[in-house]
Amino acid sequence: MNTTLPTKDDLLKVYTDIRNRVHNTPVLESSSINNLAGSKMYFKCENFQKMGAFKMRAAVNAILRLSEEERSRGVVTHSSGNFGQAVALAAKELGVKAYVVMPANAPEVKKAAVASYGGIITECEPTLAAREFEANRIRESVNASFLHPSNDLDVILGNATAAMELLEVVPDLDMIVVPVGGGGLVAGTSLAVSYFGKQCKTIGAEPLNADDAWRSLQSGNIEINKSADTVADGLRTNLGSVNFPIIRELVSEIIRVEEDEIISALKLIWERMKIVVEPSSAVPLAAVLKAQGKFTGSRVGIILSGGNVNLEKLPF
Amino acid sequence: MNTTLPTKDDLLKVYTDIRNRVHNTPVLESSSINNLAGSKMYFKCENFQKMGAFKMRAAVNAILRLSEEERSRGVVTHSSGNFGQAVALAAKELGVKAYVVMPANAPEVKKAAVASYGGIITECEPTLAAREFEANRIRESVNASFLHPSNDLDVILGNATAAMELLEVVPDLDMIVVPVGGGGLVAGTSLAVSYFGKQCKTIGAEPLNADDAWRSLQSGNIEINKSADTVADGLRTNLGSVNFPIIRELVSEIIRVEEDEIISALKLIWERMKIVVEPSSAVPLAAVLKAQGKFTGSRVGIILSGGNVNLEKLPF
Repeated sequence: MNTTLPTKDDLLKVYTDIRNRVHNTPVLESSSINNLAGSKMYFKCENFQKMGAFKMRAAVNAILRLSEEERSRGVVTHSSGNFGQAVALAAKELGVKAYVVMPANAPEVKKAAVASYGGIITECEPTLAAREFEANRIRESVNASFLHPSNDLDVILGNATAAMELLEVVPDLDMIVVPVGGGGLVAGTSLAVSYFGKQCKTIGAEPLNADDAWRSLQSGNIEINKSADTVADGLRTNLGSVNFPIIRELVSEIIRVEEDEIISALKLIWERMKIVVEPSSAVPLAAVLKAQGKFTGSRVGIILSGGNVNLEKLPF
Repeated sequence: MNTTLPTKDDLLKVYTDIRNRVHNTPVLESSSINNLAGSKMYFKCENFQKMGAFKMRAAVNAILRLSEEERSRGVVTHSSGNFGQAVALAAKELGVKAYVVMPANAPEVKKAAVASYGGIITECEPTLAAREFEANRIRESVNASFLHPSNDLDVILGNATAAMELLEVVPDLDMIVVPVGGGGLVAGTSLAVSYFGKQCKTIGAEPLNADDAWRSLQSGNIEINKSADTVADGLRTNLGSVNFPIIRELVSEIIRVEEDEIISALKLIWERMKIVVEPSSAVPLAAVLKAQGKFTGSRVGIILSGGNVNLEKLPF
C-alpha cells in the first residue's frame, strides 16, 4: 500500500475523537429486498445521522482538527446541500462560527436548515465560480478556515467512520457499496475497508449521467462532468486531487446506473424499509440490482448516505 | 377492575406465544420533536413490523387461538387496509388458507400485497354491507373462521403486545398515546398499560372528522361516524361491543385533532425522523402538539401504527 495513505492509527484516532459527537446509526436489513437481490444486504442508515447525512462526521472531524486559534476565527464553506448544514451544526456544537455560502436559488428549506443551526448565510449567484469567489472573500475578510466538502483528508477520515461502525456490526462483509459524488465518502470507506475488512472490497455506485469517477478510473486522470443531469443531486460533483489517489488505489470498481434504476431503488427502500432516504442513497442498491450477478450470495454493506429530501418534490 | 377483563396472565401468554412470530420493533426518539413538544417522546415503530403495521400481531394471535381443525378450514376477513394483509401474511406463515374480501375499488397496490402473501381475494361492491355479505358467504361455504380486525378479544390481546414491548424498553412512561380507529389498538394498549405501566395512562387520539370514540365516551354508548372524511384512512371505523367496555374502563381520555394538524405531524415525522409512516400514525403526535400543556415535561410513549402508504398519493 502506498505509504502516503492515512494509517490505521489515523482512522482509529478520528473514530475515538468523533464517536461521542455523532450518532452510531443503526444497520437495517430487509428480507424482501434480500429476496429480490439474491444477496444479503446490510444498510447503514446515515439518514438517521445528526442533520440527516453522513457529512456530519466529516464536518465534526474537520473542525476538531483546527487549532484553537483557527476555531476562534470561524469556518467557511460553500454548499447547496448537506455539507452546509453539517458545517453549521458541527460548528454550533463545537462553539465555532460558521459562514455558509449558498446559491440564491437554493431551496428555502435548505437555507432554513442552515439558519436553524446558526449558520451565517451569504447568498451568491448559482455558479461554482460565484460560490468559490464569495467563500474566498469571506475567508480573507474574517480569516476563517475553508472547509471543502469532499477533497480534504480530515473530511475523508471523518467519512471513514461510517464504514468502521458498519464493519463492527457485520465484520465479514464481502463488499461495501457507496454512492460516489465528490469522492469523499468512497475514499473514506475504502480506507476503512482496507484496514478493518476481511477480504472486503469497496465498490462505488454512480449515476451514468454523472459518471466522472468511472471515467477517471478508466483514464487515470480526474475527469469532469460536463453536465450532470441526475435525480441524485448529491452526486453531481467531481473527484479531487486528495481523494482520487485513494480511490485509484483502494476502490475495486465503479458501477453506473440509469435514472429510472435510481428511482426504482429509491421507491423500493421507502416502500419496503419504511425509511426516508434521498435519491443519492438509492444509487448503491440500484447498482446491486443492476449488476446482480456480481453480488449473488454475498454479504453486502450499503451506506445510505442521507435522508434530506424535499417531500413536496419527490421523483415518484 | 372489572373481573371480565382479560388478566395479566392472558397478556403474558399471548406475548410468549407470538414473540417469535413478529418483530420486536425499535423505539426511536427525536430531539428536535422533543424540543418542539416540550416532552420526551418514545416512538414505537410498528411501521417496521412485518407487513408494515401492528395488525400483524393481532392476526398472528387470532389464528394461533384457533383449533387445528378450524385452521385446516382457513380464515376469512374483509378489509380494504392493513388487516387483510396481516391476515394473509400471518395465515401464510402458519400454513393456513386466508380468504380476503376486498372492495373492487381498493388500490391495486393493496390487492397486490394481499395476493403476494398468498391471500385468496374476492372482490365485492365498495359498501360495508357487501363486504359483510361476501365474507359471510365464504365463511358458510368453506366453513372458514371469520376474523374481525378490531372487535375481537384475541385481536385486542395481540395488539397489546406492542405496548408491552414499549414498556419493557421505557418502563416509566407517564402516558402512551395511540390512534383510535376500530378500537382494537387502544383497548389492547390500555390493558398492557394497566398491568405493566407504573402510574401510566392510556390516551387515545382521533381525527375530529371521525370522532366516534370521543362521542362514545361522552354518551356511554357506541356512537357511529355518519361520515368519516379524514386523511387518516385507518381511523374511519367505529368501536365495537368487545373493545368499548375495555376502553370505557381503562382509557383516560380521547384527544381530537383537525386534518391540517394530522398532515403537519405526519410531515414532521417524515422530515425529522426520516421514517415512512401512514397518516393514522401521525394522529397521536398531532394530539400531543395540540394539547401540549397536558404533556409538558412528561415521558410519552407513541405507537406509530403502520407505514403502508401510497407514495404516489401523499397529502403534502
